[in-house]
Amino acid sequence: MPAKNQDLHGNAPDKSAVALLIIDCINDLEFPEGDQLLRYALPMARQIRSLKERARSAKVPVIYVNDNFGRWQSNFNNQVEHCLNDGVRGQPIVELLTPDVDDYFVLKPKHSGFYSTALDVLLEYLAVRTVILTGVAGNICVLFTANDAYLRDYHLVVPADCVASNTEQENRTALDEMAKVLKADTRGSTELDLAKLKARD
Amino acid sequence: MPAKNQDLHGNAPDKSAVALLIIDCINDLEFPEGDQLLRYALPMARQIRSLKERARSAKVPVIYVNDNFGRWQSNFNNQVEHCLNDGVRGQPIVELLTPDVDDYFVLKPKHSGFYSTALDVLLEYLAVRTVILTGVAGNICVLFTANDAYLRDYHLVVPADCVASNTEQENRTALDEMAKVLKADTRGSTELDLAKLKARD
Amino acid sequence: MPAKNQDLHGNAPDKSAVALLIIDCINDLEFPEGDQLLRYALPMARQIRSLKERARSAKVPVIYVNDNFGRWQSNFNNQVEHCLNDGVRGQPIVELLTPDVDDYFVLKPKHSGFYSTALDVLLEYLAVRTVILTGVAGNICVLFTANDAYLRDYHLVVPADCVASNTEQENRTALDEMAKVLKADTRGSTELDLAKLKARD
Amino acid sequence: MPAKNQDLHGNAPDKSAVALLIIDCINDLEFPEGDQLLRYALPMARQIRSLKERARSAKVPVIYVNDNFGRWQSNFNNQVEHCLNDGVRGQPIVELLTPDVDDYFVLKPKHSGFYSTALDVLLEYLAVRTVILTGVAGNICVLFTANDAYLRDYHLVVPADCVASNTEQENRTALDEMAKVLKADTRGSTELDLAKLKARD
Repeated sequence: MPAKNQDLHGNAPDKSAVALLIIDCINDLEFPEGDQLLRYALPMARQIRSLKERARSAKVPVIYVNDNFGRWQSNFNNQVEHCLNDGVRGQPIVELLTPDVDDYFVLKPKHSGFYSTALDVLLEYLAVRTVILTGVAGNICVLFTANDAYLRDYHLVVPADCVASNTEQENRTALDEMAKVLKADTRGSTELDLAKLKARD
Repeated sequence: MPAKNQDLHGNAPDKSAVALLIIDCINDLEFPEGDQLLRYALPMARQIRSLKERARSAKVPVIYVNDNFGRWQSNFNNQVEHCLNDGVRGQPIVELLTPDVDDYFVLKPKHSGFYSTALDVLLEYLAVRTVILTGVAGNICVLFTANDAYLRDYHLVVPADCVASNTEQENRTALDEMAKVLKADTRGSTELDLAKLKARD
Repeated sequence: MPAKNQDLHGNAPDKSAVALLIIDCINDLEFPEGDQLLRYALPMARQIRSLKERARSAKVPVIYVNDNFGRWQSNFNNQVEHCLNDGVRGQPIVELLTPDVDDYFVLKPKHSGFYSTALDVLLEYLAVRTVILTGVAGNICVLFTANDAYLRDYHLVVPADCVASNTEQENRTALDEMAKVLKADTRGSTELDLAKLKARD
Repeated sequence: MPAKNQDLHGNAPDKSAVALLIIDCINDLEFPEGDQLLRYALPMARQIRSLKERARSAKVPVIYVNDNFGRWQSNFNNQVEHCLNDGVRGQPIVELLTPDVDDYFVLKPKHSGFYSTALDVLLEYLAVRTVILTGVAGNICVLFTANDAYLRDYHLVVPADCVASNTEQENRTALDEMAKVLKADTRGSTELDLAKLKARD
């Protein structure tokens, strides 16, 4: 229906050179390694929450990039409700990171947030040049998304305290790889100057 | 989170060589040409509804491929509710075509259902070879989606009574183009033999 | 090998807001309808040649977007040589439109120049906003490429005298569709003001 | 020009469940770290050459996936000639791995062989399910290509002796990541049973 042009057919509601991506945090963690991941993901979620609050104050759009656990038959809200109300392992994380009504969300079928999704189109309409990547798992979905962001010439910021993996070693290796190969800034989230990032080309 | 593999990371809930796509029918039609389109879209919606019932009986998956009027901040359910409850022009169509709980949906940012969406991945996991395209507008979003389906080697069925455009002439030209260039079967929906299509390679 | 960054890893040799695309003109036309197409394609080729000369003077990059008849085992030069030296039906067209050494080329596996090719990346690095589409067949590969250019928000110019199809009717219908749905400027090539197009946003 | 269907519009010259990909080996290595890379890449090239000979005997298609150093203005043959005749650092590697006339090649604009290229279409038409990845740099272009192959559900084989990086440590880390996250078989090339891989689903 391009006649109406209501959607992203040529525009977006916000403009910002930076966006904060929260990857796969709306997750019940009800799988074998979930317990192991929770140990690192809970402190991570607290850091992401602070960063998200700063982002919202700075008018930096927040985009939830998440597996579509509903298998394309359900919707993201149902997944949020499930995580909040069904006594699942991931509940404390989802409580910290419950999406706000004006946050964006992009559902992905695979590991990378860019693969077969509208993420690139959305970022383009938002005029984003720098993506801040956060979430789980650092060495899988965050890393895959980081690789694809780098291919597309986005500047990358991946705060070390805002990603978690099943083990510290895996997380560290992934961060090192993102810093070295993808030129990501991996300093801690408290060191991020969002206003400066917004002003960057 | 590939560890869990809950989503489309390697599987899909259904298998079917055919899928029914309903394009942009969850639409309030609250735009200048909406009235004109409604004239053709309402009888079309009745035909799609019958076809959808036959599809569900035949275990042919139904996929709503729709503009994301929520601009990636809202969800598809809200759009359905808006169309059903806010007294909009598109209400009778959405009443006829309200999604069922196990229907699939894919939100698209642009005209083609394949562009920057999970549609191709979903069809691949469903093992679909033939797509039945229905909806509005026949000469825009249906045609763009048909072109992209053809590029990807899907067999195309576009029942003439299940697509509508702003004018009869535009609809007819689009159907002729799909028949000639894309080798689409454009016979009326009552002539479709879903069991036969499912058995086709 | 991003370390070296010799290729398009971040830059391109030219910058221009406009590019001239020549679609599927390096073609031996040795297929059943080739004779029919030649009748319209030869006068078209003369018009494209003039336009190409003007483009080169104006420093507008020329991009050959062509089927890869070598089936990914041979290269584009072989196809050019074949068309020039083997006494094929398409020879007079290829003589008029022989690629220059600094023209670009993009080989496509399917009808659309954007599908599974580097065209979008190349246009982005060239900083192109307006594409001038020319070539054959107007109602197939030119039209598919035009649709995909429109989805990606390029401005479209499709000079009516620089596209050809098997029949006048098919060519006219395709041009009308591009003008109406894709907002393409379809005026004749002599009316194009390349300097003005370059200055356009 | 779908009428003629000479290219990949629906078919491919070979069928094989396995393909051998040789990544970025047609390379003059004339960049700062080239000397360092050569130290590892030369023994690697000898291993790839043996594997390539076995692949050709077993009718496993060989696909060169390479940066397009010609910046889309030149062609792959020129790059091969440059590496063979201009006294460059990469010459001994290109001598070992000179493409045969019926090898395939796919030029990539970025690090991943799948990004904005025809690779996925080509593999689909060849009916490939398992890709054997070889070449340089193991921790960059090979790894990016491996990630994208995994997303697309290809089985991965990355023989440890057939990839090289600037340092042994980087190569080892990349191989470990591909084995662990992407489930790649990273055993040495002499252990590969090509007939068995071809018979695999």
